[in-house]
Amino acid sequence: MINGEAITTIPVLDLPPAPRKGLVVVTCMDSRLDVFRMLDLDIGDAHILRNAGGRVTDDTLRSLVLSMHLMATREVFVIHHTGCGLHRVSNASLQEHVLAATGEDASHVDFLPFDDLVASVGEDVARVRSLPLLPAGITVTGAIYDVHTGTLHRVA
Amino acid sequence: MINGEAITTIPVLDLPPAPRKGLVVVTCMDSRLDVFRMLDLDIGDAHILRNAGGRVTDDTLRSLVLSMHLMATREVFVIHHTGCGLHRVSNASLQEHVLAATGEDASHVDFLPFDDLVASVGEDVARVRSLPLLPAGITVTGAIYDVHTGTLHRVA
Repeated sequence: MINGEAITTIPVLDLPPAPRKGLVVVTCMDSRLDVFRMLDLDIGDAHILRNAGGRVTDDTLRSLVLSMHLMATREVFVIHHTGCGLHRVSNASLQEHVLAATGEDASHVDFLPFDDLVASVGEDVARVRSLPLLPAGITVTGAIYDVHTGTLHRVA
Repeated sequence: MINGEAITTIPVLDLPPAPRKGLVVVTCMDSRLDVFRMLDLDIGDAHILRNAGGRVTDDTLRSLVLSMHLMATREVFVIHHTGCGLHRVSNASLQEHVLAATGEDASHVDFLPFDDLVASVGEDVARVRSLPLLPAGITVTGAIYDVHTGTLHRVA
């Protein structure tokens, strides 16, 4: 029993936590990406990790280790997308933007921008593949989602 | 034009990247959480950040700074859930699990487990509220999603 105002209730299936498809999706926070619809997923099918850019960070690696060791996922799908706010911007310009808006120094923050969309997917796929803390024999795939055509293209 | 095998195409609306509702959702990677359905969101409504536990990490803060300064979001909704794999486990037991499975030392990884679900939401809401790099006047709300009843309870 949770004490707290009930905001909403949806009908649920009483599913186990381990993803039915053994899949983890790593993608961007972008508002135009509905991962369930894009990959035709149902509730219970996959773990979903999302951050700015769909970049593979230390936090992504923390989550992947938990997903693969506690819930037996074995496939990772890294998806970046066209029209991303991190594409062809610089850390310096982002840091200046924050300084102008808040008066705060953001020079210690690497926002993980990228110049080449295919290369950024490749880098993040390689980062997952090189992590010794993950189980042997996992599959890692990389793709780009085109927000204008709705098409997902495999690139790694 | 992206070179690469087309995996799938879905019908899309040609939407701008900035979330229509000015909202960022921070929640867990758990396979049972469909954030669009839970919050009755459409494509284009919100940024969605997901990791193991829905914890507010440095990577979450990186993403929030970008979301709020580049795409004018002003509301953050932190959602943890019952039956989470990080609830009532210890870093030591998780690190031992990884060592046994891979032979690798994971003692440097803080998996961010928590003993109390309401407290973990409160901590993460407080962490967002205390970040100087975010704009002034943002709204931060915390809730727990019960995976067995499908009910979302506001707790912070």
